[in-house]
Amino acid sequence: MSRRARRLVILAEGEFRPHAAKTALGVIRYGSDPVLAVIDSTRPGANAREMLGPAFDVPVVPTLDEVLPHGPTALLIGIAPTGGRLPPSWRPIILAAIHAGLDVLSGLHTFIADDPEFAAAAREAGVDLVDYRRPPERMETSLGRLHRPGSRVVLTVGTDCAIGKMSVALELRRAAREAGLSSSFVATGQTGIMIEGWGAAIDRVVSDFVQGTCEWLSELGEERGDWVFVEGQGSLDHPAYSSVTLGLIHGFTPHAMVLVHKPGLTEHDFDHLPGRSFPLHPLPEMIRAHEQIAGLVAPSSVVAIALNTSLLDEAAAHREIERTALETGLPCDDPFRFGGGRLFSAIRERVGALPWVHTAEAAA
Amino acid sequence: MSRRARRLVILAEGEFRPHAAKTALGVIRYGSDPVLAVIDSTRPGANAREMLGPAFDVPVVPTLDEVLPHGPTALLIGIAPTGGRLPPSWRPIILAAIHAGLDVLSGLHTFIADDPEFAAAAREAGVDLVDYRRPPERMETSLGRLHRPGSRVVLTVGTDCAIGKMSVALELRRAAREAGLSSSFVATGQTGIMIEGWGAAIDRVVSDFVQGTCEWLSELGEERGDWVFVEGQGSLDHPAYSSVTLGLIHGFTPHAMVLVHKPGLTEHDFDHLPGRSFPLHPLPEMIRAHEQIAGLVAPSSVVAIALNTSLLDEAAAHREIERTALETGLPCDDPFRFGGGRLFSAIRERVGALPWVHTAEAAA
Repeated sequence: MSRRARRLVILAEGEFRPHAAKTALGVIRYGSDPVLAVIDSTRPGANAREMLGPAFDVPVVPTLDEVLPHGPTALLIGIAPTGGRLPPSWRPIILAAIHAGLDVLSGLHTFIADDPEFAAAAREAGVDLVDYRRPPERMETSLGRLHRPGSRVVLTVGTDCAIGKMSVALELRRAAREAGLSSSFVATGQTGIMIEGWGAAIDRVVSDFVQGTCEWLSELGEERGDWVFVEGQGSLDHPAYSSVTLGLIHGFTPHAMVLVHKPGLTEHDFDHLPGRSFPLHPLPEMIRAHEQIAGLVAPSSVVAIALNTSLLDEAAAHREIERTALETGLPCDDPFRFGGGRLFSAIRERVGALPWVHTAEAAA
Repeated sequence: MSRRARRLVILAEGEFRPHAAKTALGVIRYGSDPVLAVIDSTRPGANAREMLGPAFDVPVVPTLDEVLPHGPTALLIGIAPTGGRLPPSWRPIILAAIHAGLDVLSGLHTFIADDPEFAAAAREAGVDLVDYRRPPERMETSLGRLHRPGSRVVLTVGTDCAIGKMSVALELRRAAREAGLSSSFVATGQTGIMIEGWGAAIDRVVSDFVQGTCEWLSELGEERGDWVFVEGQGSLDHPAYSSVTLGLIHGFTPHAMVLVHKPGLTEHDFDHLPGRSFPLHPLPEMIRAHEQIAGLVAPSSVVAIALNTSLLDEAAAHREIERTALETGLPCDDPFRFGGGRLFSAIRERVGALPWVHTAEAAA
């Protein structure tokens, strides 16, 4: 994937809110390319810093025209709707961007490069259409590869979708680097790939090859660092996405897992039939479930809880972190809000004590 | 899918053995179209009845030429290799069949209709190329649909791949019909679709849509009968395929599961790196694991054990069935070998006593 200097404008029309615009917010917070503006005509005058803090000054503008004078090089599609289809109202905006000479970067299930109208316009304008969700050519089933001795593979898992599993993995990678350790991040979703420049959107892979793809992604991650932080997907109790979650657990066979939870969220937040509801499960039950099902293929342990305290004020966040540590007996923090250093130190200590890390290395 | 009268010849070159040729054997045993012969030049003089019993008299011939005088209408590809790719040595045989005016029916991951050489030859010869593994156009995530009141959805699960989950579902459907009940079979793999004429190869579906696809397949099954027997895939502890298995469990949300096991098999039988081995788990542990993980989305119970006793003589088979019933406290039989009547009666009684069947109906 091209990593030439880019100047992004992010399309999030009608959707620049914390949950719906997780792609936009992830790219603004963790990406390496400057973001000039977000397009959302329903939120004029808003700014990313309201959601991400003062360091992230990205204005929201009503149309593409406001941004063009500032020289953007690419339009990035900043939402990830259920089913991943392109809202029809976005079509004219994308065409206008192409005509204005911008590349278009997308993580939708509907591939923009395969759209005849977009493809023809892009050829004429000489711009690139990049589909980050396009599955890799390698179609391989799992072979039972062992991890490289010296590597420590840590997967983020969660009590729901879209609560911060990618962010936690990125914060822990940053903390590991700050501790002077070699470390990598394995992106398993389109936003992570946009940020990191490599990876695979596991939810787009043919199901027979999910675990095989995770296996070779792990290998690539282990080539890039000793501490490998893998972005999780979905949740093990999710009515729509649990199988993708399990594919990551049995495909990456992580030495350890970090369970991400958002206090205040009580039900799975996804498009379901009216009248139905799917309550989240208590943390101790989720810890047990993850360890039991992981252990059917390779032993793994939940070594820490990462809370997303975005629904709480700072005092309440600290109280909830303490309460959760007591409830679970595990180290707990909000690495997104308070930095990943403390949590990573605790994880490092616990992973170092896991018997299977050393058994595998003694055998290798 | 066309169900016009067909006369099949099955290609299983070098592979007409119980495990490798499970597609061939499934179609011979359960399909509605007559099978004239199996092509396998490495097993001249063999006959399907050696594996399936005297009712299944299908000779093995060395080449397609031996079968042509008997008027076959279609060549069916009768293997399901890991990764599902076409062995290159089969290419000339498939081309010869097309030139001889035969349709070609395939369940491989490599779609034969997308192969330029096959497609051109088929156009010229006026024959059809049918890819049973092609995923459905519907790309839907789960919505949390409830089962139709009055339906009883039963999923076969297993301790490994390729040990008879499809056959058990078909035998139970037959037993339910013989008991005068309305019943359907939901095919989730290419062999099942070849036999039944509808279904979807779940292992070929994009992982994001696995559970959604299971949900609407269940709806179609419930339209066709009260007792819905769903063909399972893989196993929950399988290093390569467990995520597909979980997709079926959380997508079909079966009222009950039947656990299939093959006594004598001790390790997962799949293409893995040399030196690695993946032991099967004891039945009581697998029963617990299935019920726990199913219960994260909807309650379900393992109500019976179906043994594949093909590695045992008849006396040993009966002993093993008794021993397993004692070990697990569940009804147990080999429905493939001894008929599905007894096992279905026991399942019917147990499913009738499951509290959630009635709770859901009282609420509906």
